[in-house]
Amino acid sequence: MHNSNATNKSPRGNFFEDFHIGQVFHHATPRTISDGDSALYIALTGARQVIHSAQPVAHAMGYKNRTIDDLLAFHMALGKTVPDISINAIANLGYAQVKFVKPIYAGDTISSTSTVVGLKQNSDGKSGIVYVQCEALNQDHQVVISWVRWVMVRKNDTNAPTPETVLPTLDTVVQAKDLDIPHDVEYNGFDTSMTGSDFLWDDYNVGEEIAHPSGMTIDESDHTLATKLYQNPARLHFDASKSTYNKRLVFGGHVMSVCRALSYEGLENALSIAAINGGAHCNPTFGGDTIYAHSAVLDRFEIPGRKDVGALRLRLIGVKGAPLKSIAEASSNVDGKRSYNPNVVLDLDYTVLMPRKS
Amino acid sequence: MHNSNATNKSPRGNFFEDFHIGQVFHHATPRTISDGDSALYIALTGARQVIHSAQPVAHAMGYKNRTIDDLLAFHMALGKTVPDISINAIANLGYAQVKFVKPIYAGDTISSTSTVVGLKQNSDGKSGIVYVQCEALNQDHQVVISWVRWVMVRKNDTNAPTPETVLPTLDTVVQAKDLDIPHDVEYNGFDTSMTGSDFLWDDYNVGEEIAHPSGMTIDESDHTLATKLYQNPARLHFDASKSTYNKRLVFGGHVMSVCRALSYEGLENALSIAAINGGAHCNPTFGGDTIYAHSAVLDRFEIPGRKDVGALRLRLIGVKGAPLKSIAEASSNVDGKRSYNPNVVLDLDYTVLMPRKS
Amino acid sequence: MHNSNATNKSPRGNFFEDFHIGQVFHHATPRTISDGDSALYIALTGARQVIHSAQPVAHAMGYKNRTIDDLLAFHMALGKTVPDISINAIANLGYAQVKFVKPIYAGDTISSTSTVVGLKQNSDGKSGIVYVQCEALNQDHQVVISWVRWVMVRKNDTNAPTPETVLPTLDTVVQAKDLDIPHDVEYNGFDTSMTGSDFLWDDYNVGEEIAHPSGMTIDESDHTLATKLYQNPARLHFDASKSTYNKRLVFGGHVMSVCRALSYEGLENALSIAAINGGAHCNPTFGGDTIYAHSAVLDRFEIPGRKDVGALRLRLIGVKGAPLKSIAEASSNVDGKRSYNPNVVLDLDYTVLMPRKS
Repeated sequence: MHNSNATNKSPRGNFFEDFHIGQVFHHATPRTISDGDSALYIALTGARQVIHSAQPVAHAMGYKNRTIDDLLAFHMALGKTVPDISINAIANLGYAQVKFVKPIYAGDTISSTSTVVGLKQNSDGKSGIVYVQCEALNQDHQVVISWVRWVMVRKNDTNAPTPETVLPTLDTVVQAKDLDIPHDVEYNGFDTSMTGSDFLWDDYNVGEEIAHPSGMTIDESDHTLATKLYQNPARLHFDASKSTYNKRLVFGGHVMSVCRALSYEGLENALSIAAINGGAHCNPTFGGDTIYAHSAVLDRFEIPGRKDVGALRLRLIGVKGAPLKSIAEASSNVDGKRSYNPNVVLDLDYTVLMPRKS
Repeated sequence: MHNSNATNKSPRGNFFEDFHIGQVFHHATPRTISDGDSALYIALTGARQVIHSAQPVAHAMGYKNRTIDDLLAFHMALGKTVPDISINAIANLGYAQVKFVKPIYAGDTISSTSTVVGLKQNSDGKSGIVYVQCEALNQDHQVVISWVRWVMVRKNDTNAPTPETVLPTLDTVVQAKDLDIPHDVEYNGFDTSMTGSDFLWDDYNVGEEIAHPSGMTIDESDHTLATKLYQNPARLHFDASKSTYNKRLVFGGHVMSVCRALSYEGLENALSIAAINGGAHCNPTFGGDTIYAHSAVLDRFEIPGRKDVGALRLRLIGVKGAPLKSIAEASSNVDGKRSYNPNVVLDLDYTVLMPRKS
Repeated sequence: MHNSNATNKSPRGNFFEDFHIGQVFHHATPRTISDGDSALYIALTGARQVIHSAQPVAHAMGYKNRTIDDLLAFHMALGKTVPDISINAIANLGYAQVKFVKPIYAGDTISSTSTVVGLKQNSDGKSGIVYVQCEALNQDHQVVISWVRWVMVRKNDTNAPTPETVLPTLDTVVQAKDLDIPHDVEYNGFDTSMTGSDFLWDDYNVGEEIAHPSGMTIDESDHTLATKLYQNPARLHFDASKSTYNKRLVFGGHVMSVCRALSYEGLENALSIAAINGGAHCNPTFGGDTIYAHSAVLDRFEIPGRKDVGALRLRLIGVKGAPLKSIAEASSNVDGKRSYNPNVVLDLDYTVLMPRKS
């Protein structure tokens, strides 16, 4: 700093050496979610999922009101963790065990906490991987979403001691018994004219693919408006000079949202997301890219104690430039490792709830 | 399809041979309209119409609350019909008899139905014209908007039999007796300081023109956000590769909204739209175009039984690039047919309600 | 006009000769502010100020609800004055004595009035300066914001008589005794984990600078959506042909909002704006510019009768292209006049409220 009056009021965020196992963060700026957020989310993604769109449909099923889109809430909750956890991140490496625990409604206020559950310094001694177990809480201190996330963070002081390596045990898939299905929500007699498709849980087969027919160009204003709506202040989304690509990077969560919205055509009755098992932002997305979505059914399983609703585990591929013909084009195995098609921008493994035939 | 796992879950929409006279569609994904939608509509169009903007003004007139902008509701209602009616359309040919039947408020949930009322196969046997009578219903199953629309739709199977030609009888103008004026709304004593203009129904003369002084550039994010807000999934608005222009086409309804907002300056007391008699999207609008509006008074008529409010039938021309000097520049008659100036993007014939002098 | 049917219904606005001392304007189109406006404002600016974001935090302090962002309300209130005061303005010269008098909540309806308090014709006889004292009122006719603004306006008839010069007496700084602090709002025990920073009023020193670390590119859709949201119809923001730069000019108020949002990082506990003492839009901002913010503490003063909250008078510099190293780079004194760095787009002198240590 050339300026002797400058002070340290600007937050520097945390570096790798600032994290220790068991450390808890109560992240700043709780957010009251409103119908305005939902309107804007629809405008930003084109989402048409019925329980987020139509109050009477949601209410008839037993929800208190139409619910806030699962991914909108997730992005807001995750955005809150950025200043403490990942403002100095080199890379967002992954997430696991994302569970949508309770419905969120307009008027609810969300805040987030993170607990450090894993640390591993990289061999070059300049950075390390931080694993956090996060929870989003509503105004009644109930957990509404929980997840694990891991990021690679720079060391500020490369002489700082190397912490003991601790790696959390992570499930690759959130099991059926761990999915939270609202007790008072009833899927029997769900009126498929509300969604425009008769295909229910029973109609989807493992291995089946769905080439969603629509594409969507993401413009610079779209993704920056979205990321600001989520109050995610990671700088590389807003300032090209902070991005190694010298272009503003589209927030990966927003790509996820666009793909989920595009996947409506063919998955109309995937009413809500119960879990995200894992996901990768395989290649960067930039303003001007046109995104297409392709799904595959990875698994179909029953929910214990429920005959009215089942779970589908889906793989959702987002690709830029042109649609995939088949999910086999998304990636190949090279020396036992998954190697991605350079146009693939998202590979998401997630679980949805879908009404069963009665 | 190269992919043997691909299934037919993706909706294919309907082709010309799939329609038959009397067929009824209950369109998917009802939409609860919120104050958030209104906020975004104002941001997307610059609309300042007072009964949509100001709760106390609307309430003092007898409305339950400020009302949802007529065109916002219309676009949402129309958007719902796209997946069943026009996802395979070659062209949107026109609409008629658009009637705004009941006020719509934040919290109302809109769904749409269409009934096939006309069919005419084109002489080449590859496509045909489908006429639908549509209704938007609120959560109490009351009709809030009704309209007729006709589109040209491809045949998928050109060997499918040619249907008998049926053409509906359409009114060129919605008559005064068919306009729905809310009984409990009172225009007497309307305070023109709320709108900024003293000109009332009595002051407008048939043949009079208004050159609205403002222009507005429509950027790519503007029109795509708007069209997604309306949940209109027609692909050519979002994906240049789906547009014959190789550019994303601006949804014509959004052009209508922008022109209506621009026409505020000179029609400040045109409080609401009672009907759209007809309209043409004469030339395409693309992101980056700057739009200007020009109005002419086609007719001025009394509302049966009302001395406090009258109707003006207006022609609203939208033009790109530079404003019109006179409405005569918009089109000319060539061999008895209207030929449009290539910069004219909208020619709308609609009817507004305006307070009368007391 | 070539068109004999054209009429004078389009508003021409007021020219310099139309204003006289003591003249009062009741500006058109009141606006009901909603949660939707707040959602969009967050998306447009990235604002994270906690009392606008989180209902429970605001409520616990004694506010009725989370409050509408001070600048959002100010821009809406100012936007209403444009058609009468500044639609024919050559330049917006300044504002002073901006006081945020009462909190504004979703559901409140704002309207604006202006009283002409100063007039000075320019020596060339072609234009003059108009000073207006303005008030924004809520639906209960309570003043919620007040300000003085002055603009240079063209004469339409250069032969119109020269008015007597009247210059209002303006305070350079809104004094502590004139700041309005809600009586029933209590800052004691404010939980700084809600904002992410422990720095309170006591920690800031006069002369201290804060280099806010984030930057934000403003795209064309961003600023035009914002300016339409504010219902500010000044044409040079929407139509390049109406701008002397031949490019759409970003509304200066929106630049202010972006800088205020960027200044969150380092001023997290500057909970609300109590006053704007003065401000200059030093250079134009255009779509595509990347904006950075730099703050300096001009003064720190107690609020009479309050030990829980204090005031900081801040200088907020907005700069395009690259951040400032020091506020000394913003401007220099040339022949006794402030000369701005050509990249500086905003120089704002304002006063915030911040909790004190207990």
